[in-house]
This record gives sequence, structure tokens and C-alpha cells, in this order.
Amino acid sequence: MSVVSQKLFYSEFGEPVKVVRLEEENLQVPKTNEVLIRMLAAPVNPADIITLQGLYPTKPSLPAVPGNEGVGEVLSVGSAVDSLKPGDRVTAQTAINWGTWRTHAVCDAGHVYKIPKELSIVDAATMSVNPYTAYRMLKDFVPLSEGDVVIQNGANSACGQYVIELCKVWGYHTVNVVRDRPNIDELKENLKELGATYVLTEDELWETEMFKSGKVARPRLALNCVGGASGELLARQLEYSSTMVTYGAMSKQPVPAHAAFFIYNNLTWRGFWVSEWMKQHTGSPQHLQMKDHVSQLLIERKLSTPVHKLVPITAYKEALANTSSGTALKSVKYIFNFQN
Amino acid sequence: MSVVSQKLFYSEFGEPVKVVRLEEENLQVPKTNEVLIRMLAAPVNPADIITLQGLYPTKPSLPAVPGNEGVGEVLSVGSAVDSLKPGDRVTAQTAINWGTWRTHAVCDAGHVYKIPKELSIVDAATMSVNPYTAYRMLKDFVPLSEGDVVIQNGANSACGQYVIELCKVWGYHTVNVVRDRPNIDELKENLKELGATYVLTEDELWETEMFKSGKVARPRLALNCVGGASGELLARQLEYSSTMVTYGAMSKQPVPAHAAFFIYNNLTWRGFWVSEWMKQHTGSPQHLQMKDHVSQLLIERKLSTPVHKLVPITAYKEALANTSSGTALKSVKYIFNFQN
Repeated sequence: MSVVSQKLFYSEFGEPVKVVRLEEENLQVPKTNEVLIRMLAAPVNPADIITLQGLYPTKPSLPAVPGNEGVGEVLSVGSAVDSLKPGDRVTAQTAINWGTWRTHAVCDAGHVYKIPKELSIVDAATMSVNPYTAYRMLKDFVPLSEGDVVIQNGANSACGQYVIELCKVWGYHTVNVVRDRPNIDELKENLKELGATYVLTEDELWETEMFKSGKVARPRLALNCVGGASGELLARQLEYSSTMVTYGAMSKQPVPAHAAFFIYNNLTWRGFWVSEWMKQHTGSPQHLQMKDHVSQLLIERKLSTPVHKLVPITAYKEALANTSSGTALKSVKYIFNFQN
Repeated sequence: MSVVSQKLFYSEFGEPVKVVRLEEENLQVPKTNEVLIRMLAAPVNPADIITLQGLYPTKPSLPAVPGNEGVGEVLSVGSAVDSLKPGDRVTAQTAINWGTWRTHAVCDAGHVYKIPKELSIVDAATMSVNPYTAYRMLKDFVPLSEGDVVIQNGANSACGQYVIELCKVWGYHTVNVVRDRPNIDELKENLKELGATYVLTEDELWETEMFKSGKVARPRLALNCVGGASGELLARQLEYSSTMVTYGAMSKQPVPAHAAFFIYNNLTWRGFWVSEWMKQHTGSPQHLQMKDHVSQLLIERKLSTPVHKLVPITAYKEALANTSSGTALKSVKYIFNFQN
């Protein structure tokens, strides 16, 4: 038995629409510890674009199939696999980048994880990057208690919205910073509906007396995906001995790190990268607990489905051309739908 | 019985030479838990100048006696004091800033610590700021083993020299960064005599292949007292998951904190302030162990006596005028000598 798989692939780094091609491949039956998967959906993430451009710190050996996230269904399993069975729904995880932009794949049974079938295809396809990033940043850096305050910039980014929702679940207050824009009132309203406690533009944060007056406790954790003056502005609001975690740099500017932040306010600045976390913790109790918890929250609608556009794999040029290499703030997330 | 003490004092913040005055005071016998001390020596530190200017984050209530470091001899003790006796040599510690620029003081017995009489007056007077800073930065941030590499800028500062000597004691290699200057070869030679493994100018560090080539292991700890591009340069050399500790900002410039430092290289940036450490740990086992160890190293000449000038308290205007508010790199440390 063999299966014909359609897959996107590339053999040199460059402009995504130029270097990516579609081809067919014959897949053999899974070996002892392998599984054959029919992919259901896989998103196009900004990190995929940077990887295709050859600008990502970890470069795949070429040729390669792009895509680091997705959901599939097990079709058949190797003789030694007892953790999965045909019909199981699985999430591809990001540590072993085997390329999710394909209709079928044969991979090691340990490189995918079973998820509940109640999860929507879109939620399952997009749960391993942004929700996991938000989850770990809120769990692993500062021990937070109900009522504690978290501040973040880029609050309307895909990850920022999950931060708002997770904080609501855990009872943390959020101070959400966004850039001013024509429809700012609508944006503020949308984020508050998600559960945001406060939403401010950068200018409003510069001028606010909310912390000085004691109306709002100073944040104990800052999440920075913008950098530059915006990151500096977050750091200035923090409580003594707090932590700022950087996970992006949409402004492409470094944050001015004033000595007083560290010497007098005893801040700690750290970073988070979900790919690296998965590399180090895949299959660990924390990973499995998070997978189950995030699945549950998605099923309960406590975490929202990202704004997205489902396209067939043949529409890959549109998907690549319309996905920014930065954290796509306003753009729609393209998701390959392999079901048709 | 009463003692006439000469003391420097100030009742408003401003230019040190203008606001500081000398006056006499009658001291009474020490109460139950107090001790009467004859001060032997007390240095003028850059932090004292900033405090006098009113620019230090923690401001004393005025009027106050300046000085946060010094050595004295116990003259008499209160009825309940059994930890100290007349003739004991004590170091004033920095947590309770009772003002060391005076010939005599009455203070709580818990606010001074006994030190060996073998310590020279100058070493004893200057052991609690710079040696303690170097000691804690090497102990408390990264677990280091023999052969590990520490990188620092401002390596010829008072604290930087103690870092070199302590690393030699503990078997750590040091990469020492200094600014280029006319007598650079002489400076390099001096630091190597102290125990520096490598000494480079900032330009040399930009160009060096020592880490890339694998000749020298990447540093696991960076100590930054300069800031700006110099701090950035340190961060660029670090091993994955290392820590940079900022304890000064001689350049008065913030360090550009690139997102990649945190996201891809998993660096941690923190700060150290010896006054705060003493406030939190005074009298703790770590403090007492450090006091004894630093005393021993000074007695054995494994830590050097700083370049200094002893002056009588009446020469305070000269001492104040010649002490920079920054970390005084090249200047002599003024020390009030109360023994004559």
C-alpha cells in the first residue's frame, strides 16, 4: 500500500512565493515506530516566512517541507505503536520540524500528540504556537496570584489576545498597550470583550497616573513583542524586582536598557521562544498538561479562534504573499485546509 | 563621661563642597545596646557624592552625616552588649547609613561588625563596597566552576580590579575590556599582574576571533558598569543562557537590548546594588562568611589595597572636589584618616 501525498517544498532560501513549489510524493506504509497521518489543516505563521527566507536562527537542511504547526488524523500505525490508533486526531508539535504543509505525512509516533476530537480543525491547527507562547510566559517567569497585574504591548497581536484570555481565566489583571490608530475605540472595545482589564495607547500610558496614584498595582510581569520605546515604557511601569519577557520585536528596535532598571528597580529581563521551549520540553509533564488545558479552554470557548482564511494547498502563493514576516497584527491568518 | 566628636554634616542637598560643613558634637555614653566608636578611617565614594547632590534613589533625612563605609575601634559598650568589647576593630556596614565621616560615633551594636586587627586601616575602611560588590556578583547570579569565563567592562575600575583578583582566587578566567588610551600597554600589563587572563580594548573585542575560533570558551557571566555600546558588546560574546549583571553606567548610555539576545540566545539581564544587598542580608550567614573571607584575602594580599590618599577630616573640601560622581576610573580614592 502506498499513499500519494501533495506537499509544498523548497530547495533554496529566498522569497517564499518564488522558492516554494507543489509536488506529489508516494508515501510508504509506516515502519515500526511510525504513523501515517492525513493532515487536516496547517497555518502559515510569520516564523514560516522567515524560515523560507533563510533568516531564522535555526535553518532546516534543504530540500524541506515548510510549516511547523498543524493538525492531522492518524490513518495507520507501525507495529510497535500503541500510543496512537487509526482515527486519532493529533497535533504536530514544533520541536521536530517535519513540515506540516502536506496532505499526508509519515512520521515518528513520538512527534505528534493526541488531542480531543471536540477541538475545531482551526483551533487544533493553531494551538501550538501562540496559545503555548502566552501560556508559558504567564507560567514560567513570575509566580503570579489572582489579582496580580500583567502588562503587555502589541496586545492585539495573535499572542497578545491569548494573554488577555488566559489572564482572565487565571484571575490576573491586564494592562494592554496598543498603538494609536483610527479605529482605536473599536479595538479597545474588542479587547475588553476578550477580558482585557485596561487598554491604553502608548501615549496614554506615558501620561497615566493609574500606577502612581495607587489605583492599579504595578505590574509584576511585562510581555514585550514590540521593542524600542514601547518596551522601555513597559519596563518603567513595573513593580520592584519584576520581570520583562521579550518574545518579539515588531518595531525592529532594541529596547533602551537603562542601568537604573536593573540597579535600582532590580528588574530581570529575559526572553521566550516557543520553538526552543518545545525542543527542551516536548513530551514532558508540563507540555502534556498545557496541551490538555489549552485544548479544554479552546473547547469551552475561553480561548478564541484566530481570525483566519481557509485555503486549499494549491492557493499557497496567495497565502505566502499575504503573510507578513513580522508578527502579523492586523492580517488574517492563512490556514491550509487539506480536507477537500 | 562625654566625648567631643568632630563630624561633617549637611542640611540640604547640593554641590558637596558647598553644603558640607564641619562641626563638633558632644556624644553621651552608649545606651544598653549601643557602642561608642572611635572612627579610624572612612573613604569618600562616588555614591556619597551622588547622595550629597540629592540624586541617589534613597535620600537620607536631613540633616545627616555623610559616608557609608569606614572602620573604627570600639571605645565602650552598653550594658547589654556582649558581641563587642573595647578595643575591637569594627567595620561600618552600608545598610544602616549612620554616617561614617566623623571622629566618633554612638551606634547600635548590631550596625557594626568585628573584623581582624591584622587588616590595614585602608583595607578595612574600603572593604564593604567594592570588594563586596565584586564578591556577590561572582557568587549570586551564575553557578561558576573553575575554568569558566567571566567578561567585564570597566575592568580597571576599583570594582573591576577586585573582580579580576577574586576570579583568580576561584580559578575563573577573565576577559577584561577597557577603553583605549595612550598608556594602554601599561594598563594591560597592570591588570595582567593582578591576574587578568585577557585584556582587550573595545575595538579589539569587536574584532577578536577568540570566541568564534574556540580558543576561549564563551563567557557565562558578564559584568557591565559602562552601559551603551560597551554593554551591548559584552552581551554579544555570551554563551547561550548566560547572564549579564549591570552595576553601573559610566557612559550614561542605555544598553541597546536587542530582542535576539533574549529570544534566541536566552540571555538574562539583571542588576546589582550593594546597598540594597546589605539592606536585605546584613548579619546573614552570607554576609558574615563574605566579611571573613574578604578580610582573609586582604590580609593575605590576594586582594589589593586601592590607590588612595589619606587626608585629615579638615581637608574635606579637597576630598569632595576631587571625587567624581561617576565611578572614578583614574582618580585616587580619598580616605579620611581620623587617627591624627
